[in-house]
Amino acid sequence: MQPIVIAPSILAANFARLGEETHNVLNAGANWIHFDVMDNHFVPNLSFGPMICEALRKDGVTAPIDVHLMVSPVETMIRDFAKAGASSITFHPEATLHVDRNIQLIKDLGCQAGLALNPATPLNCLDYILDKLDLILVMSVNPGFGGQSFIPSALTKIRDIRKKINETDLPIRLSVDGGVSEKNIASIYEAGADTFVAGSAIFAKPDYKHAIDSMKQAVSL
Amino acid sequence: MQPIVIAPSILAANFARLGEETHNVLNAGANWIHFDVMDNHFVPNLSFGPMICEALRKDGVTAPIDVHLMVSPVETMIRDFAKAGASSITFHPEATLHVDRNIQLIKDLGCQAGLALNPATPLNCLDYILDKLDLILVMSVNPGFGGQSFIPSALTKIRDIRKKINETDLPIRLSVDGGVSEKNIASIYEAGADTFVAGSAIFAKPDYKHAIDSMKQAVSL
Amino acid sequence: MQPIVIAPSILAANFARLGEETHNVLNAGANWIHFDVMDNHFVPNLSFGPMICEALRKDGVTAPIDVHLMVSPVETMIRDFAKAGASSITFHPEATLHVDRNIQLIKDLGCQAGLALNPATPLNCLDYILDKLDLILVMSVNPGFGGQSFIPSALTKIRDIRKKINETDLPIRLSVDGGVSEKNIASIYEAGADTFVAGSAIFAKPDYKHAIDSMKQAVSL
Amino acid sequence: MQPIVIAPSILAANFARLGEETHNVLNAGANWIHFDVMDNHFVPNLSFGPMICEALRKDGVTAPIDVHLMVSPVETMIRDFAKAGASSITFHPEATLHVDRNIQLIKDLGCQAGLALNPATPLNCLDYILDKLDLILVMSVNPGFGGQSFIPSALTKIRDIRKKINETDLPIRLSVDGGVSEKNIASIYEAGADTFVAGSAIFAKPDYKHAIDSMKQAVSL
Amino acid sequence: MQPIVIAPSILAANFARLGEETHNVLNAGANWIHFDVMDNHFVPNLSFGPMICEALRKDGVTAPIDVHLMVSPVETMIRDFAKAGASSITFHPEATLHVDRNIQLIKDLGCQAGLALNPATPLNCLDYILDKLDLILVMSVNPGFGGQSFIPSALTKIRDIRKKINETDLPIRLSVDGGVSEKNIASIYEAGADTFVAGSAIFAKPDYKHAIDSMKQAVSL
Amino acid sequence: MQPIVIAPSILAANFARLGEETHNVLNAGANWIHFDVMDNHFVPNLSFGPMICEALRKDGVTAPIDVHLMVSPVETMIRDFAKAGASSITFHPEATLHVDRNIQLIKDLGCQAGLALNPATPLNCLDYILDKLDLILVMSVNPGFGGQSFIPSALTKIRDIRKKINETDLPIRLSVDGGVSEKNIASIYEAGADTFVAGSAIFAKPDYKHAIDSMKQAVSL
Repeated sequence: MQPIVIAPSILAANFARLGEETHNVLNAGANWIHFDVMDNHFVPNLSFGPMICEALRKDGVTAPIDVHLMVSPVETMIRDFAKAGASSITFHPEATLHVDRNIQLIKDLGCQAGLALNPATPLNCLDYILDKLDLILVMSVNPGFGGQSFIPSALTKIRDIRKKINETDLPIRLSVDGGVSEKNIASIYEAGADTFVAGSAIFAKPDYKHAIDSMKQAVSL
Repeated sequence: MQPIVIAPSILAANFARLGEETHNVLNAGANWIHFDVMDNHFVPNLSFGPMICEALRKDGVTAPIDVHLMVSPVETMIRDFAKAGASSITFHPEATLHVDRNIQLIKDLGCQAGLALNPATPLNCLDYILDKLDLILVMSVNPGFGGQSFIPSALTKIRDIRKKINETDLPIRLSVDGGVSEKNIASIYEAGADTFVAGSAIFAKPDYKHAIDSMKQAVSL
Repeated sequence: MQPIVIAPSILAANFARLGEETHNVLNAGANWIHFDVMDNHFVPNLSFGPMICEALRKDGVTAPIDVHLMVSPVETMIRDFAKAGASSITFHPEATLHVDRNIQLIKDLGCQAGLALNPATPLNCLDYILDKLDLILVMSVNPGFGGQSFIPSALTKIRDIRKKINETDLPIRLSVDGGVSEKNIASIYEAGADTFVAGSAIFAKPDYKHAIDSMKQAVSL
Repeated sequence: MQPIVIAPSILAANFARLGEETHNVLNAGANWIHFDVMDNHFVPNLSFGPMICEALRKDGVTAPIDVHLMVSPVETMIRDFAKAGASSITFHPEATLHVDRNIQLIKDLGCQAGLALNPATPLNCLDYILDKLDLILVMSVNPGFGGQSFIPSALTKIRDIRKKINETDLPIRLSVDGGVSEKNIASIYEAGADTFVAGSAIFAKPDYKHAIDSMKQAVSL
Repeated sequence: MQPIVIAPSILAANFARLGEETHNVLNAGANWIHFDVMDNHFVPNLSFGPMICEALRKDGVTAPIDVHLMVSPVETMIRDFAKAGASSITFHPEATLHVDRNIQLIKDLGCQAGLALNPATPLNCLDYILDKLDLILVMSVNPGFGGQSFIPSALTKIRDIRKKINETDLPIRLSVDGGVSEKNIASIYEAGADTFVAGSAIFAKPDYKHAIDSMKQAVSL
Repeated sequence: MQPIVIAPSILAANFARLGEETHNVLNAGANWIHFDVMDNHFVPNLSFGPMICEALRKDGVTAPIDVHLMVSPVETMIRDFAKAGASSITFHPEATLHVDRNIQLIKDLGCQAGLALNPATPLNCLDYILDKLDLILVMSVNPGFGGQSFIPSALTKIRDIRKKINETDLPIRLSVDGGVSEKNIASIYEAGADTFVAGSAIFAKPDYKHAIDSMKQAVSL
């Protein structure tokens, strides 16, 4: 299993001073910065695109930027985010007819490639591409809809994927996004996740360092 | 004709410190803040959505926020931007089968309603809705594509629309977006425009006040 | 101008006893039966398809059935409604890339061909096909949305189309749909319409004959 | 296994007197009323929408109305049918990117949630949502196309799903639609189905009670 | 008016020996080679793509290749045909939201730019781009459907466009495609066309030279 | 296992003299002619449609023509290619909601039916239709993109499918397309394929007979 990564999603940050927020959360111990990119087609919401990635890089952010594309089609956004400084790019298998091709494209552009699974998405989409992936992202809420809490069946899915990853010798990360907080992170970790995306669980708290430390502590035993 | 409005497009601002940029440009004399909303479907680019509008409102921005939707479909975005604090919402007639209905929706939500015309879009789309509009936005570049300069035929279109507006007694604004700078603003104004969207012509300059003053001066004679 | 036609829209009838409702409204003096066909794609609603047309024909309805397709694409529905016994079939120019072709198809299938215009749709769509049409349908509300009243600019549009029709020597009908009632039918008639679609203005009344007579009287002067 | 349910599909009823037909078939022993909702996009046919459901409820139908959505997208139709009085709402996993979310939406609106499987659809779509479902609908013909008979491989699929359901302790119904008649219902029942949708096998018969009784008898041994 | 051009459409040629056919028709006096490119989306047919253009260039064809894109979207095909050796590229205004942009793209790639008008398409699509065009193609049949003859209203449209072209000083070609033969070419020419696409009127004849000569003669008086 | 078939893809042939090329490659020992049909929607490329099939049949080609549809939707193309003389028609499960129905359609039209699997497509799409198929086509490159080489995981997939086919008693062919050459054909054959599509590996060679013989020899041990 890979070292634990805490990846705050800037969707929950204050966009009026995004550079400052990002630096603060990194100084508070965040490992990656997570991007939730929505196009109002794959999901019912429009968030932000590559220009935000470029802005943070120009503002001196050097930490990994982990881009989750909730968009369809994906090819243009893959190219634009790679150019804008993304470190890893993750897309949904339902978002393209050419899954293998887009994984290869992400890698050819020098990024790490991830695949994101909606709550109901079964695992056989991984059958012939698992060994080409750097990251699998389990959605533990339905992406693009507000006001949801962690879906319990995600734990089963995390366990199932962890088993599949362990059957390879590959350093594939297993990430979780949706309703993750210091209260449930231990059980998610035990199920097999090593990368934790959190939005309001960090940015809605007064003390980012305390929030991140609590999460790290919960999974450090 | 309405009083002149200079509307800087935040697409050209530094998104790492967007609140500061916005306050600066307003203090420098900008009248409105312009939003270029792109969804990677109506135009080949993804910019940003309602959350940015909400963030600026929370950051104390009280100036009119003028939202240009380069998205399709439009209804969800109209609702979300109205809720997020938009002052005016402009969409393209090609983006919906229900142009009259969406104008009405924008007004029912308490915002001003605009229609945006691509460079090749003819004017007859205005025939049965002109008197319901608060604003007409003439695109003087092709939206969503980079590296373009002001398309000369836009001046003809501005003159044609100005004539149509003047035939009504209505305070309909005539706005222009794309390649507007202090160099060509006078001729655009003479053609009949009263509202000027500018991106890099303001945000790429070291002194926003000087940039805006130059534009205002050019149209004040 | 053609003889007046009152065309009750069965969308407002009681679908539990549609045959009876249809015979009643015809016995009460209705000239045509109007169908509002919605597919939840061209408009945000799903109403009913060709099977209802076939059912009424089998139930002995011999009056003209006037089908308004608020669907896209149109070709399959044109074929299916012609087969199911439609008398006239009307579609929207925005619903197909092949307007001329589908007018021809309707005629080849033995039906009368109509074109429907949304409230914001300009008239130049008629430029090269007017003489091939049997009917033009002016929408005086936005199709597919509830709770709307007659849009005043529809009167201007009716006048403009009446002028165009009169410039030909052709017996093209001019129909109106949306918010038509005994209160406004006289002014709609004066503007140039000869065919009047009405839903709740007939079916929500206790006495269909009285409702239809009132409408006919209002336009008989 | 749940008690047997016979669910006549009103697609095969006489739509000129739908209320009467529905009451007759219920008096004849039908347990549920089945709706085949087609939008001419998910399947090549347009049948009927929520207004029919509302009409039957207003006509005094209190039996469960079992809605099978052969439409895409599904969200608006789910909301509209729930409001119109549907008891259960079933959709296809291919019709939405947000399967888990729409199951939850159906339940939040007070209905039972079902998932429908096309003849070629494999079962892994159930992997992470089986325990959230109230009903699984096996299509034993290809939906939306006419003139088909029962596809034999549906029996294998019914057996496979029955096994999965029995592994849970949950009262999930297993329904079958397409070519079901008194001749093959016994073998379908033996394969594991408990809910039987039938159209012409009931409505094309002169005596609905005899038709339904024959089906019930065939599975009662 | 420009010198007459006869442009045989290879859609009607023998594709088993396309190089020979093309050379023969050019030796017989054809001026251009016309390509009818269909994608089974913009029109209900799939014909052929850029590889055919490249093959003819490699086979030594140096005459202008005039590509009519009946496809949507257009951008990729514009790039691919320009690279494959096209001389002019024509698209439909309904096929893209970015008409001005794609005209510019064609020119930037070194080709001549055309706009094609379906039989029902009105002329106002030309209002703000006429002076950027090298060619206007009037469809005198509905593209993509078989067995049609020349639509008479096309003559009116040709006259209307000729008037518009003559109001400029620009060498814009006016081309016609659909049902053109030696029998009607004179009246089409008199209406104002200078470029004539013909398929079976040439390739279905035993003697290409005779067929082309007959057409040329008919318009030479 | 079925007898070996070598199926040259004419995508790599010289389209200026396609009849000659086809006869040559058949005389050189090719068993089938393979068609790569692309519509610029399912894959990012437009190749050719049914007219090429018809042209080769008219040119005297009697060998099996094996059509691989990289298009969506598939129904029109299935009908058109069957009419044009195709022997087998293969489509992708992602290209239609009605997989079972389209397999049946192909058979009803007198052709053999195949299903094509993209590199990342898992095998469960075969679960309820395997016994209805005549051919399974494993894509060993991503269809529609240029410059790719054989994807190694295709060998695993071929082995997995071979096992499934052998569990039936059915003469289902297992075909491979993408980067197949005399160098890797032996290992592909050993994995379980019996039908080999090759493009440049044959048509880019000076001596087709030598190229085909080399491939046949490599799998004859």
